[in-house]
Amino acid sequence: MLGASGYAGQELCGLIARHPSLELAFAAANERAGDCMRVAGRSVRLEPLAEVALDRAALVFSALPHGVSAPWAARARAAGAKVVDLSADFRPGNPAAAAEIPYGLTELARDEVRSAGMVANPGCYPTAILLALAPVARAGLIAPRAVIAVSAASGTTGAGRAARADLLFSEVSEDYRAYGVGNAHRHVPEMRAMLGEMGAEGDLVFTPHLLPVARGILATITLPIAESLEDPLTLWRDAYAGEPFIEITAESPTLHDVTRRNVVRISVTPAAGTRQPALIILAAIDNLLKGAAGQAVQNANLMLGLVEGEGLPC
Amino acid sequence: MLGASGYAGQELCGLIARHPSLELAFAAANERAGDCMRVAGRSVRLEPLAEVALDRAALVFSALPHGVSAPWAARARAAGAKVVDLSADFRPGNPAAAAEIPYGLTELARDEVRSAGMVANPGCYPTAILLALAPVARAGLIAPRAVIAVSAASGTTGAGRAARADLLFSEVSEDYRAYGVGNAHRHVPEMRAMLGEMGAEGDLVFTPHLLPVARGILATITLPIAESLEDPLTLWRDAYAGEPFIEITAESPTLHDVTRRNVVRISVTPAAGTRQPALIILAAIDNLLKGAAGQAVQNANLMLGLVEGEGLPC
Amino acid sequence: MLGASGYAGQELCGLIARHPSLELAFAAANERAGDCMRVAGRSVRLEPLAEVALDRAALVFSALPHGVSAPWAARARAAGAKVVDLSADFRPGNPAAAAEIPYGLTELARDEVRSAGMVANPGCYPTAILLALAPVARAGLIAPRAVIAVSAASGTTGAGRAARADLLFSEVSEDYRAYGVGNAHRHVPEMRAMLGEMGAEGDLVFTPHLLPVARGILATITLPIAESLEDPLTLWRDAYAGEPFIEITAESPTLHDVTRRNVVRISVTPAAGTRQPALIILAAIDNLLKGAAGQAVQNANLMLGLVEGEGLPC
Amino acid sequence: MLGASGYAGQELCGLIARHPSLELAFAAANERAGDCMRVAGRSVRLEPLAEVALDRAALVFSALPHGVSAPWAARARAAGAKVVDLSADFRPGNPAAAAEIPYGLTELARDEVRSAGMVANPGCYPTAILLALAPVARAGLIAPRAVIAVSAASGTTGAGRAARADLLFSEVSEDYRAYGVGNAHRHVPEMRAMLGEMGAEGDLVFTPHLLPVARGILATITLPIAESLEDPLTLWRDAYAGEPFIEITAESPTLHDVTRRNVVRISVTPAAGTRQPALIILAAIDNLLKGAAGQAVQNANLMLGLVEGEGLPC
Repeated sequence: MLGASGYAGQELCGLIARHPSLELAFAAANERAGDCMRVAGRSVRLEPLAEVALDRAALVFSALPHGVSAPWAARARAAGAKVVDLSADFRPGNPAAAAEIPYGLTELARDEVRSAGMVANPGCYPTAILLALAPVARAGLIAPRAVIAVSAASGTTGAGRAARADLLFSEVSEDYRAYGVGNAHRHVPEMRAMLGEMGAEGDLVFTPHLLPVARGILATITLPIAESLEDPLTLWRDAYAGEPFIEITAESPTLHDVTRRNVVRISVTPAAGTRQPALIILAAIDNLLKGAAGQAVQNANLMLGLVEGEGLPC
Repeated sequence: MLGASGYAGQELCGLIARHPSLELAFAAANERAGDCMRVAGRSVRLEPLAEVALDRAALVFSALPHGVSAPWAARARAAGAKVVDLSADFRPGNPAAAAEIPYGLTELARDEVRSAGMVANPGCYPTAILLALAPVARAGLIAPRAVIAVSAASGTTGAGRAARADLLFSEVSEDYRAYGVGNAHRHVPEMRAMLGEMGAEGDLVFTPHLLPVARGILATITLPIAESLEDPLTLWRDAYAGEPFIEITAESPTLHDVTRRNVVRISVTPAAGTRQPALIILAAIDNLLKGAAGQAVQNANLMLGLVEGEGLPC
Repeated sequence: MLGASGYAGQELCGLIARHPSLELAFAAANERAGDCMRVAGRSVRLEPLAEVALDRAALVFSALPHGVSAPWAARARAAGAKVVDLSADFRPGNPAAAAEIPYGLTELARDEVRSAGMVANPGCYPTAILLALAPVARAGLIAPRAVIAVSAASGTTGAGRAARADLLFSEVSEDYRAYGVGNAHRHVPEMRAMLGEMGAEGDLVFTPHLLPVARGILATITLPIAESLEDPLTLWRDAYAGEPFIEITAESPTLHDVTRRNVVRISVTPAAGTRQPALIILAAIDNLLKGAAGQAVQNANLMLGLVEGEGLPC
Repeated sequence: MLGASGYAGQELCGLIARHPSLELAFAAANERAGDCMRVAGRSVRLEPLAEVALDRAALVFSALPHGVSAPWAARARAAGAKVVDLSADFRPGNPAAAAEIPYGLTELARDEVRSAGMVANPGCYPTAILLALAPVARAGLIAPRAVIAVSAASGTTGAGRAARADLLFSEVSEDYRAYGVGNAHRHVPEMRAMLGEMGAEGDLVFTPHLLPVARGILATITLPIAESLEDPLTLWRDAYAGEPFIEITAESPTLHDVTRRNVVRISVTPAAGTRQPALIILAAIDNLLKGAAGQAVQNANLMLGLVEGEGLPC
C-alpha cells in the first residue's frame, strides 16, 4: 500500500488487514513516514516511500496524490506487481491514461479488470454519477442536447487530511458551499469521457459541494429524457440485477443508508408537471468505500482471481 | 405576532423587539401558549391565540402553520390591522391566493407591497430561487423548453420545531438527504406561478435537501440558456443595482456568508465545455431572515411607510 | 431480542446477526412493531412484543425501557431462556435488583456472569466510570472523604430514539449542556452501590452532559488520592493486564479512538502543582457497544460457554 | 486593532464597527496582511503590522499571539494610546504581568480598569471559571484543602484560525477530547493567581476539552464546600445583583443560552446524597464575546469614560 496515510489509504489498509485472503505487506507514506497508524485494532508503522521493496507484494495499491502516483505505479509494475491506482493519473481524460489500463468501475468493466495488470480506480464522484447514469445512457434515452445537471455533495474526508484553513471545523461546521463551479472539477474529464463511451449525447454540468459531514457523497442528477418512462426503476433494476453492491430503491437514498458500506444506492423519480420529461436520479455512496478503498478491493479481488466481494462490508 | 413559538416566529419577535420604529404588541402561539420565550434579552410570555386582541397592533405578522394561518389573517384584517402572512396560504398557486394580496418578494414587488393591506411573504426556497432567476427570466434568455434544474439544501430550522424522530440530532448529523423529490415540495406551485409571470418558458425541476446545519439555504441552479453570455454577472448586477439586500459576487456564496444577515448572495458562472450554453447560478440566504422574518420586516416597513431596511441586519 | 427498535437494540441485532455462533431468533418491539429495520445488510421485520414465542431463543436480550423490561425478562426466564437485561431494572440500587443477578461489568464479574441465568447489563456511563475507578478503588487509594468529581459527556444516541423537541438537530447542534445535575441521574444508584462494593470511601458527584455527536462517551474524573503515585498508569496496567477490551494509554482517549469498537480506553494523569495529590482519569467508550450492546454480547458469550470476545469489533 | 485576522480579532472589529461611540481606526495583522475581511457588512483591508501608525487610535486592542503581543502593546502605550491586551502576556502568572496592569475581569475590577492605561484581558476559560467561583471564594466557603475540579469544554474558535490537521472538520466532528490534562493548560497560572487573591484555599484541577461546536464554553465545577448551604443561588445573586452581563439561573446554562451574547450565565446546584457537602457550579459564555472581544469592549468603555455596556449584545 503506497500513500497509506490519507483517509482513503487508511481505510484501504483496514480493509486489507481484515480481508480473509489478503495481507498487508507494507504501508508506505511520504509526509507521515515513521508515524504509527491504527489499522484494524493494531498499530502499523508507516514506511518511507523510498525504502519500500515493491516486490514484496503481489498487488500494490497506490493512493498517492495525483501526479505523484503515476511513476510509483510504474515502478511497482516493473517490480512485477499488479497495481490498483487510486489517483486520477491513469483515468480517461488524464495524462497517463492508456488503453490497456481499464477504468475500474467494477460492475461495468469486470472482464477488462479481471485480466488487467493495472487498473485506474475511479474517482469518488464519478463512481456515484456514472453508475447512476449508465443504464439510461446505454439505453440511449437521454434527450439529445440535454443538459445533464449534476449537483453533488461530499463529506470532508473527500478533501483529504492535509491541514487547510478552509477545512477547519470552525469553517465547515454550519456551512455548505459549492466549489469547482462551472465544470472546473478534476473529475469532469473522466466523467465526460465515460459518458461519451456509453453513448450519452448530453452535456454534463457538474457542481460539487462540501458538506459538514465526514463521510459520504450524494449526487442529485436532473436529467431531461427523450420520452417519459412508465416505470423508470425497472430500467435500473434490470441493468443491475444480481449486483450485490448496487441497490435500486423507490425511496431516496441518504448518506446514513450507505456510510461504512461498499454500495451505491440509487433512486429514480420522474419530475411531475413538466412538458419536457425529466428524471431525478439520486445516488449515494460512502466516498471512502465504494468511492475509493472498497471499489479498489473489488478490483483487486478480480485481478487476483478471488471472489469479487471478499472482505467488503455490505 | 401570531405563531411566535416556531423558529421563524421567534426570529421575527427578535427583529421587532430590536426595531427602532416597531414594538412587539403581543406574541401569540397555540401549542406553547403560556410558556416564556427569550426575545432580544428579555422574557416574553406567549399568549394563547384565542385570547389575543388583534386590534392592539397596526400590523400583524402571522407565522402560523399552513392552513391555520388564513382565517387568522382574515380576522386580523377585519380588526383593522395590516397583515404580513408568512404561511403558504395566500401565495400564488395556493388556495387563498388573491389578486389584491401581492407576493412579497420585496425587491420585485415594492409598489404593490407599499400599498397593500395584506402581503403573502414568500417561502424560503422561492426567495432564493426566484431572486436568482428573475434577471435571466425577465431578459427572456432561458432556453426554450429548458429544464431549470434546481438542487437546493436547507438547514433544519426550515423544517420547524415540532418533535419529529427523523429530525433528531442522531438522525440528521452526518447525514444528507433529499425530500419532496419529483416536484412534490409545497413551494413548487408558487415558484412555477412566479416563473410564469416573469416569462420563463422552461420547466422547473426542484429537489430540496436537508443539511446537517441549523440555518441557511443554498440553491444550485443549472440553467440552459438560449445563447452564451459574455459576462453573465453584468446582467444580474444591472438588474439589482443599488439593492442593499442583494449581493452579486464572482465567488460562490456560502452559508457562512449569509447567516444572520438579511441578504441573498448570488453568483453566476458559465459551464465550461458544453455545446448547449448553460449557467450555474448559486443563491444563498439565511432561511430565517431573508427567507422568512427579515423579508417580512422589509415588507412591513414598506406597508407602514418606514424606510425599507430599518431594523434589518446586513 | 426484545426492544430491538431503539439505538442499542438495533446495534445488538447487528452484532447478533454477524456473530459466528449466534443467530437472531426474533426481533421484537412495541412502538415500531411491523416496521422493517436493516440489520447487517438485510431487512428484519420487528414483531409485536406480545406475539413473540420467548422459548425460541436459548438466550434473550432485553433492551426494553426501564420499568417495562423487568416483567418481560421474568417471562423469558420462565420460558427457559437465559437473559441479558440492558435496562436499569435489575441493577444494584434499582427495584428489581437481586443477589443472584450479577451486575455484568464483564471484566470485574466473569465468574458470576458465567454461571448466571440472568445478568443486569451495566449502564453506559457506569461502564466507563466504574472500569476507570476500579483499580484505584480496590487498591484503597482514594482519599478518605474525597469528592470523586465525574464530569461525563455522551452522544445523543444515549438519549434514545423517541421524538423529543429538545433533541432535534436544531437544538443540539452547536450546543452543549449538562443534565441531571446534582446527582439526579438514573445511573447514580448503580455507581454508588458498586463503588461501595469496591471499598471506595469517597462521595461520587456525577454530572452528565449532552454532546453534539451521535455516539460515544467520555468521562473526566478528578480524583483526590491519599498519597501521590510515582507512576499511576502501572496500577491500571497491572489491574487490566491481558484484557482485550481495556486499553490503558498515556495519551488522553478521544471518542474517535473508541467509536464502533467494543473497548474502554483509559488514561491517568497526575495533577501538577497541587498540595492535595489528585489524578485525572479519562475513560472513553462507544455508548452503544462497550456501553450497551457490545458488553451484552460479552456477557452472553460467557453465559453460553462461548469465547468471551466472539463477534465483537476491537 | 492589532491581530485582527483571528477569530477574536475579527469579532472585536465587528463590535468596534457597530459601536455607537467607537470607530475602527485600523485593522492590522501579520499573516493575512493585505487580505480583505468583512466587518459589519463592509470590507476592511488588513494592514501589515509594521506599517501601522499606532498613534491613530486613542485606544489600541491587541489580539496578537501570546509572546508577540507584549512588545506591540508597549509600543502602542509609548505612542500614547491606552491598551487592552487580549493575549496572555500581561496576565497574572505570566512573564509581562505587572502591578499597574489590572486583570480585566470587568465585574470584579471596575475601579482599577477605569483608571488604567493598560488592561490584561482575561482568558476565555478563566472568565467563566473565575466569575463562577468568585462569590464562594470571597465568602471563604470553599472547604480547606478542597480539590476544585473544573472540567470545561470549548468550541473550536477558541483554538484559533491557523491550519492544523487536528482541527480539521474530519477530525473534530463526532469527536470530543481533553487536552492540557494535568493542569498543563496556559490558563492555569492566571486562574491560580486570581483564586489566591480571592482567598480560595483549594487546589485547582483544570481539564479543558475540545467540543465539536464553533463557539461557546461551558465550565462544570465540582466544589467541596465547608458546610452545606440552604439556598446557594442567593450567594451568587447577591454578589452579582444589578450586573447586566451576569445571569444567575436555577436551570443549567447551555451554550445556546449565551452564544452571540456578552454574558456569563451561572447555575449552582448542591450535590445530593454526599457526606462531604459539595456544589456543582456551571458557567457558560461565548468564548469570542464575554470570553474575549466583548469583555475587551467592556474594559475599553470604562477606560474611555463611556457607559460600560455600550455596543455590547446582551
